Amino acid sequence: VNLLNGQPASTLDLHDRGLHYGDGLFETIAVDRGEPLLWPQHMARLLEGCRRLRLPPPDTDLLRSEAGQVLAGAGRATLKILITRGSAGRGYRAPRDAQPTRLLMRFPWPDYPVDNGRTGVVVRLCETRLARNPALAGLKHLNRLEQVLARGEWDDPGIAEGLMLDTGGCLIEGTMSNVFLVRAGGLVTPALDACGVAGVMRARVLEAAASLGIPCATADLTPADAEAADALFLTSSLIGLWPVRQLGERRYAVNPIVQTLQQQLFLDHACA
Amino acid sequence: VNLLNGQPASTLDLHDRGLHYGDGLFETIAVDRGEPLLWPQHMARLLEGCRRLRLPPPDTDLLRSEAGQVLAGAGRATLKILITRGSAGRGYRAPRDAQPTRLLMRFPWPDYPVDNGRTGVVVRLCETRLARNPALAGLKHLNRLEQVLARGEWDDPGIAEGLMLDTGGCLIEGTMSNVFLVRAGGLVTPALDACGVAGVMRARVLEAAASLGIPCATADLTPADAEAADALFLTSSLIGLWPVRQLGERRYAVNPIVQTLQQQLFLDHACA
Repeated sequence: VNLLNGQPASTLDLHDRGLHYGDGLFETIAVDRGEPLLWPQHMARLLEGCRRLRLPPPDTDLLRSEAGQVLAGAGRATLKILITRGSAGRGYRAPRDAQPTRLLMRFPWPDYPVDNGRTGVVVRLCETRLARNPALAGLKHLNRLEQVLARGEWDDPGIAEGLMLDTGGCLIEGTMSNVFLVRAGGLVTPALDACGVAGVMRARVLEAAASLGIPCATADLTPADAEAADALFLTSSLIGLWPVRQLGERRYAVNPIVQTLQQQLFLDHACA
Repeated sequence: VNLLNGQPASTLDLHDRGLHYGDGLFETIAVDRGEPLLWPQHMARLLEGCRRLRLPPPDTDLLRSEAGQVLAGAGRATLKILITRGSAGRGYRAPRDAQPTRLLMRFPWPDYPVDNGRTGVVVRLCETRLARNPALAGLKHLNRLEQVLARGEWDDPGIAEGLMLDTGGCLIEGTMSNVFLVRAGGLVTPALDACGVAGVMRARVLEAAASLGIPCATADLTPADAEAADALFLTSSLIGLWPVRQLGERRYAVNPIVQTLQQQLFLDHACA
């Protein structure tokens, strides 16, 4: 069951600006026992995105109520929320009276191998680069061709994720996840001032690390930094936290800081 | 009348990757007396875009036939063609057996002031920058948030277009047009190796200039170059060629090279 502006639907108006321009935002939310996880954090990011794109913000109480409808009977599932600038005529200019489109879709829980969180995953470095544009950096917007091209680079099911650099050669994130390095007993994650998606789980990890007294920093990082790090891990709302056990030729040992973070984070979460 | 995969339609499957990721391309085509103009050029660009995005190419004979249906009874109109990677489940990875979506939409001819081509237009410089990414440069893809943000910067109907710089400060194009400078008796237009849309009309202007013996070059250009130029003009399939009569405080005189190009180009075209 999907809800479009509050109504069950399977199709969208052909004039929607989400289709024509990617003029909108989305959230992908883990659902456990029918409940959307980290709801306040997802709503905060969505509202911040609306502010930056000058989209009229949705009523988050209404979204929560509609999420309940969409998730009726669900156990484990994925909830995707899309907000677009709605239907309009041709042309980039948004109508003054734009009526945003509000779309809630339910998807199956992804069939990632259950051991990914425990034994770690193999990742690769993508050739597709992320463009640098501070105006869009951090947003989970609907312009995602770079991720599509990057994810199209490999077919091997043994490779769980691809890391992406920006056009300046900085390590930024995975195609569907954020990335952290462990070095010198602390965490470092790429700065997202110029590109990348500011992940909800990334923010949770930074909070958890701070509460545990683990030093955290954001910085400009390179692939060489990743190779030199003691450990690497990936985060997203859906994957939780996956240690990286191999990047290209480099193998990483199990790292106690990563294990501590997993324990702290996921007592009440999807990886529990 | 709009045609979706050959069938009259007003809505699109909610799972279309055009909506979720902007995973597709479009063409906006001027229609005169029911005929789509510069059809071979638009098809060539579309096929080249499909090749670069690894989208299965559409059958252009079929597209031409469907364009005829969509344009039945049309005089002046705008034809928009969208090709997306089609419907799929959640996730950036494209399904192996992706069935592209083929969408033809008819829109009214835009109500631009008829004098724009003769007396020229007032343009502004946008603050929104274009990100540099060679992987997407030149393509008329569906990731157009930068143009949406730029076009949202002004409301004044006296300003016909906004020029955009890339994040490195180079002048690239207008929000919906390409830009040319006239200097030293020749044409210069921004190189589109890192960003921008390789316009069909831009290519026609370069051809026309070459046939007239007018020197042409592509180069990295700045706003200072535009200010120092003898003349400036904009091109697109829909606007044809608009001289710029004012950019910010700088006013430009009528330029005979621009007039010569207009005559050469539009004997059989929309500005005739």
